Amino acid sequence: MSEAIGFTVHASCASTRGRLGTVQTPHGSFSTPAFMPVGTRATIKGLLPTQVRETGSEIILNNAYHLMLRPGDEAVRNRGGVHAFMRWEGPILTDSGGYQAWSMADINDLTEEGVTFKSIIDGSRIALSPERAIEVQNNLGPDIIMALDDCPPSTAGPSDHVEARRPKLARALRKQDHVGRLEAAVDRTARWLERCVLAHRRPHDQGLFGIVQGGGNSDLRKRSAEQVTQHDLPGYAIGGVAGGEDHSQIAETVELTTEFLPEDRPRYLMGVGYERDLVAAVRSGVDMFDCVLPTRNGRNAGAFTRHGRLQLRNARFKDDDGPIEAGCDCVACEGGFSRAYLRHLFQAGEMLGPQLVSLHNLRHFQRLMLDIRAAIRDDAWSVFARAWPVAELTTTPSGA
Amino acid sequence: MSEAIGFTVHASCASTRGRLGTVQTPHGSFSTPAFMPVGTRATIKGLLPTQVRETGSEIILNNAYHLMLRPGDEAVRNRGGVHAFMRWEGPILTDSGGYQAWSMADINDLTEEGVTFKSIIDGSRIALSPERAIEVQNNLGPDIIMALDDCPPSTAGPSDHVEARRPKLARALRKQDHVGRLEAAVDRTARWLERCVLAHRRPHDQGLFGIVQGGGNSDLRKRSAEQVTQHDLPGYAIGGVAGGEDHSQIAETVELTTEFLPEDRPRYLMGVGYERDLVAAVRSGVDMFDCVLPTRNGRNAGAFTRHGRLQLRNARFKDDDGPIEAGCDCVACEGGFSRAYLRHLFQAGEMLGPQLVSLHNLRHFQRLMLDIRAAIRDDAWSVFARAWPVAELTTTPSGA
Repeated sequence: MSEAIGFTVHASCASTRGRLGTVQTPHGSFSTPAFMPVGTRATIKGLLPTQVRETGSEIILNNAYHLMLRPGDEAVRNRGGVHAFMRWEGPILTDSGGYQAWSMADINDLTEEGVTFKSIIDGSRIALSPERAIEVQNNLGPDIIMALDDCPPSTAGPSDHVEARRPKLARALRKQDHVGRLEAAVDRTARWLERCVLAHRRPHDQGLFGIVQGGGNSDLRKRSAEQVTQHDLPGYAIGGVAGGEDHSQIAETVELTTEFLPEDRPRYLMGVGYERDLVAAVRSGVDMFDCVLPTRNGRNAGAFTRHGRLQLRNARFKDDDGPIEAGCDCVACEGGFSRAYLRHLFQAGEMLGPQLVSLHNLRHFQRLMLDIRAAIRDDAWSVFARAWPVAELTTTPSGA
Repeated sequence: MSEAIGFTVHASCASTRGRLGTVQTPHGSFSTPAFMPVGTRATIKGLLPTQVRETGSEIILNNAYHLMLRPGDEAVRNRGGVHAFMRWEGPILTDSGGYQAWSMADINDLTEEGVTFKSIIDGSRIALSPERAIEVQNNLGPDIIMALDDCPPSTAGPSDHVEARRPKLARALRKQDHVGRLEAAVDRTARWLERCVLAHRRPHDQGLFGIVQGGGNSDLRKRSAEQVTQHDLPGYAIGGVAGGEDHSQIAETVELTTEFLPEDRPRYLMGVGYERDLVAAVRSGVDMFDCVLPTRNGRNAGAFTRHGRLQLRNARFKDDDGPIEAGCDCVACEGGFSRAYLRHLFQAGEMLGPQLVSLHNLRHFQRLMLDIRAAIRDDAWSVFARAWPVAELTTTPSGA
């Protein structure tokens, strides 16, 4: 295990596999279950680090893929690393870039060596091997880094997103033997993890997490978990789950995977999701989450509330003097910014709209985590369910 | 004089016409000389009201023109007025919309009745008379409102800006008898002011300022000032000076105009300008300013410093770990955000770049006003000149 990252479990839920913990990092600790805002290009879009901190966020995520392209991982290293560069003093996690290579780039080639893709900045050919993914993250300098994985979608065939946006890839996916492809990805992910562990040059101050693949296939998830946990790592992630599955598929995959991950290491569910996905995953023993939803939706006038989502561009908010959500203690709601004013800002294309709704949404997710922690501590899921109707506790607790 | 607005002069400079004062409004008072950030559409672009306040700004300006088009002045009135709408608790001034009608819109018609122009939102035909300009501002509800004026450019012929951007208007301007046009504007402005005074329905809680026109012509400025000051108003503005003149033209026009304005009312120089324009105007007895420069330049990576302006997109800042300006106490500089990081934000098109540089620039102008006030109080202009080399005290103090 890395000396960089520690994990302490303080309490476990009586009726579920949920637990309360603290992860220690070289830049301070954070409470789990934790939600990490996504700061793709070394900035949570439109927000000062102090504002992000004030939403209750203790750890953030940056995308290695974007930063390696611009300003470049060596440039960030030369500026003192990503903490100094973006002025976030708390813990930071970076992903490996593998998921972005899959979801955003034109992949030119996927071989045992790694992936090759076209840069979205200048079209140049970029090679990302396990060794290079670790080098990038060693240069960026976050507290937690992620292994490069082979992450095909966990659902059979192409997701709706891929169908709609990337017809070529969708055709290729439809032709594949899906289980065969998932199996190959599991074994390649294991071989790549081996290479990542060997390539890691900063185990003293950066913890490397391995990633479990296997799609929705329980045999493959088990096999992947067994392979990945052969390495004594400070944390383990569940990958390949944010590709268009429905809520119950996500919950099932997470539940069957967490059983094969050690109790004494933090478990990180990558890229998920909506409130009920988080709650179900916590009840299966997941400790860490990241998702772009609060900030991406926020930029597009989509506000989260405990009773559902609002689209603030809607004309029905034109004369609405109320806050996004009564009782919310975020900067937007407590500051008295009305739905009518927020609608005006979005109609006028003013930056302050995205900022205020992003702040609200981040606070929404951090309040969710606070209440989730209380529910674990007190085993009070019925109290929780009344406070968070949007979370709809439809999944069976694993202990039931 | 309006009961809404009070003005107290606390001290006058020994060697210049500069003075220190306080303007009282229904939403609190502000110190003069004062710089007002511009919040065009009921938001200082990208900044929370609390952040604007923390730059030292005590009063802001909103544009009636933009707000009457969207969301509409009645809509703002129905939301409780512009203070409640945008959550700015301090004093607010709105302009009349006349300048925007000139500078932004396709003017269809300019008659004794008013101006008619095309809406930039939906192309509809909008009529702006003196009565309507006051009605709009009565509806919006700021503390200080401005009379509708006829404001042709003060320079003979079209400005560089108009030449470059609006060739049709430039041709028309070149054909005009300039002094004749200015004279007509002066007299029309006086007749419109009369109508504005009669139309004003909220003198108990909104102060109406009149505007002096007359271009760079001293006879016309005197005539306009005499006409406008026949009305006992709580303040008087100098208009028609932000249309492309050079620094010495601005200083001359201001100096000759202030002489005809009463000592016991605040004087407001509209839409000006760079640091040395402000300093020269203060030394001629001006008390209030507004300008888009700090926020507009800030959004485009243009940072103000005491030694000149920086373009932060420039490649030379790529490896620059220093703040925008050493010794600056703004959120960007004191927060440790480096020039290299700011350049990255602008290169990546990230909102945080405009926000941080706008905050820096607003603080720059508010620190300028603080130091200007100290220079007036202590008659210490040589100390001031050393602290603000960018202000270049080239203009002759009127007392010299």
